[in-house]
Amino acid sequence: MEYTGHGGKPLVERVITDKAEAKKKIQGLKQVPANRQMATEAIGIAYGFFSPIEGFMKKADVEATCKKMELADGTVWSIPIVFDISDKEIADYGIKAGDSVCLTYEGNPLAIFDIEEIYSFDKETIAQDVYGTKEDKHPGVKRTYAYKDKFLGGKITLVNEPKVREPFTPYFLTPRQHREKFKEKNWIKIVAHQTRNVPHSGHEWLMKHAYIAAHGDSPVEQMETMGKAISGILVNCIVGEKRVGDYIDEAIVLTQDELRKSGYFRDDIHMVTMTFWDMRYAGPREAVHHSIIRTNLGLTHHMFGRDHAGVGTYYHSYQAHHLLMSIPKEKLNITPIYVLEWAYCPHCGEVTCIGLCGHWNELQKFSGTKIRSIIMDEVKPTRLIFRPEVFDVVMDAAKKYGFGSPFVTQDYLAKAKPAFTIEPL
Amino acid sequence: MEYTGHGGKPLVERVITDKAEAKKKIQGLKQVPANRQMATEAIGIAYGFFSPIEGFMKKADVEATCKKMELADGTVWSIPIVFDISDKEIADYGIKAGDSVCLTYEGNPLAIFDIEEIYSFDKETIAQDVYGTKEDKHPGVKRTYAYKDKFLGGKITLVNEPKVREPFTPYFLTPRQHREKFKEKNWIKIVAHQTRNVPHSGHEWLMKHAYIAAHGDSPVEQMETMGKAISGILVNCIVGEKRVGDYIDEAIVLTQDELRKSGYFRDDIHMVTMTFWDMRYAGPREAVHHSIIRTNLGLTHHMFGRDHAGVGTYYHSYQAHHLLMSIPKEKLNITPIYVLEWAYCPHCGEVTCIGLCGHWNELQKFSGTKIRSIIMDEVKPTRLIFRPEVFDVVMDAAKKYGFGSPFVTQDYLAKAKPAFTIEPL
Repeated sequence: MEYTGHGGKPLVERVITDKAEAKKKIQGLKQVPANRQMATEAIGIAYGFFSPIEGFMKKADVEATCKKMELADGTVWSIPIVFDISDKEIADYGIKAGDSVCLTYEGNPLAIFDIEEIYSFDKETIAQDVYGTKEDKHPGVKRTYAYKDKFLGGKITLVNEPKVREPFTPYFLTPRQHREKFKEKNWIKIVAHQTRNVPHSGHEWLMKHAYIAAHGDSPVEQMETMGKAISGILVNCIVGEKRVGDYIDEAIVLTQDELRKSGYFRDDIHMVTMTFWDMRYAGPREAVHHSIIRTNLGLTHHMFGRDHAGVGTYYHSYQAHHLLMSIPKEKLNITPIYVLEWAYCPHCGEVTCIGLCGHWNELQKFSGTKIRSIIMDEVKPTRLIFRPEVFDVVMDAAKKYGFGSPFVTQDYLAKAKPAFTIEPL
Repeated sequence: MEYTGHGGKPLVERVITDKAEAKKKIQGLKQVPANRQMATEAIGIAYGFFSPIEGFMKKADVEATCKKMELADGTVWSIPIVFDISDKEIADYGIKAGDSVCLTYEGNPLAIFDIEEIYSFDKETIAQDVYGTKEDKHPGVKRTYAYKDKFLGGKITLVNEPKVREPFTPYFLTPRQHREKFKEKNWIKIVAHQTRNVPHSGHEWLMKHAYIAAHGDSPVEQMETMGKAISGILVNCIVGEKRVGDYIDEAIVLTQDELRKSGYFRDDIHMVTMTFWDMRYAGPREAVHHSIIRTNLGLTHHMFGRDHAGVGTYYHSYQAHHLLMSIPKEKLNITPIYVLEWAYCPHCGEVTCIGLCGHWNELQKFSGTKIRSIIMDEVKPTRLIFRPEVFDVVMDAAKKYGFGSPFVTQDYLAKAKPAFTIEPL
């Protein structure tokens, strides 16, 4: 079955699954090593996470992305997906435009890269247009400034599929696999929850809020409770580059899943998967990028909170919402659901939404810092604030995957195994 | 300003507010007394609650309502609004088709009734088509069978506006007044909550659920919390004929309002009004009728629960939803919001929705009977189930208006003052 992806174009799938064929295709190709980010993005391109792009972007696409938030063909696009390389490497590998090379990762063949263009691009332009700042304190800008001399643009074909390690294995689904899963579940409306967090009940209610909002004037079939739901929440965890102090990815994925396993979500309305992506913290532009990815996964709605994918004070609250609202529906075919914070209200005696509750002077907002410190102390919080089963899974993940800590440490950065590997073909 | 009502037709307003003009118009007209229900419905017609009908229905409209759930002109219509009269009364008052008469209530002039048609109609047909049963145990059918020999059809013009007594006075708004209020509040999306109940927190969350669902992909202005909301919940209490054991109307209206006053709803998203209407308990057909009334009030969404306006076991759960879904949007321009029950979940430690929570075996549904018995015992329930401020208002209303009881008693039926009176012109 052919699926439609972002921009109304066929979902990109550029994967050779037959090993013999793959080996034949790469025979005689020059080998060019890709670093972790390039390898991750090559995989993302090949599976269609970034449909309709079929490869690393060429100059005209980067130009249009910066200036108009579009690809050269007019498709909405917000973040450059580029392959950077130094002049020395180009010389060493003898790369010319028109060459096809074999990208390798960890020494093993990964993908065929049809290099159509070798170009340079002003990094400050990217910084200003994509991140809205030239300050290199911004992690996305810092990364941009670190790009090497040149960019290679051209199509990618995956020849060797990644092996995703435990506990991530069951959570990695390609866009096609996402769609097949949704068909199996009979979900029609599906709302994305983007996360890099271990959920407290404020997060849980944001998701429940988004589900209700996406559901809207829900058809009656849904109402006949004992029947199967026809709408769902997809918790799509972003797994990628980490910073010290972040929750470890294992804890994020497993705790999100635990919410359903422990019944805080009905079994038929909730599902957890992950997308490999290094956060750029591009705020509004990253919100658009996440919308594109989730469109490619087959989702109909995307939840956005107060400061989606922001960092520091670079973007004001709800700036992402304004940008998303400015894009016509026919250009970005996923409905944004804007949700307000949920907080604990001692007057109501429950967790409630600041858009609903009038006890503004009493509301106790969930503080990520406070919850982190509670977790550090290994004190089980009240179930109204933090689900006990989630707490247990965090502690377990810390032991099993975090070298004792649920948060990323220098130790974790040095020792944790990568989430995926590329094995010999 | 002219407003549009149900069926895309101008909102009906047939009211003479100038007393001198009114007196002149009724001079010399025969006086025909109306009972409470006829008077109530004449008022409803004149203010446009039942737009586009301009008077008591004629035979072709009743026929079309029964057979096709439409008026003779094709407008969706589900419940006959008729003026019944005995042959003896027709003879005594000397009424003929073509006459204009002055309807009186409590001895005072109420409205001019231009009698265009005197007709009879088979009551069993009405019973079967409107209520789906001929059993006179059904209160709507019983009332149908009690209609007198004939019906009078023709236009109504109110000449003497009702005086609504305390504590109802501030809650009675005409359709025009509703719309002016909404304009003042800048509400764009407004969801109706139909009620004849004192609210427990299950009801409160149904309303919050409906608000979120109606809000959907809410514009960003709403998100900037400290700004004014642009969506609202209109709690529209049905005030009319009561049965022993019902909550008294005073308690219903005042407690619903208390939820906002005590901050369980933000001040800018919630409002309570009332509509005079004798419940027919026509289930699905009554749901359509309520949708029509709320369209005329200027609402955009209408919440429906499991058994809207049903009685006994005459209608199956969600039958109203199926009927509503079968009506094309252009014929009934209000979006139904179907909500699932909210219940207390001891595992979650909070009130949650059976459409969201997976702890089905633990959920404790709100039992109206149990809550009534708690109220009878004057024991304050936990605030998670029943708001203490609401409890206090119930107790207060019982003393002030209920002759000691928050529930309708024979005593109340005999002694309570009518909600509105018609004074001498």
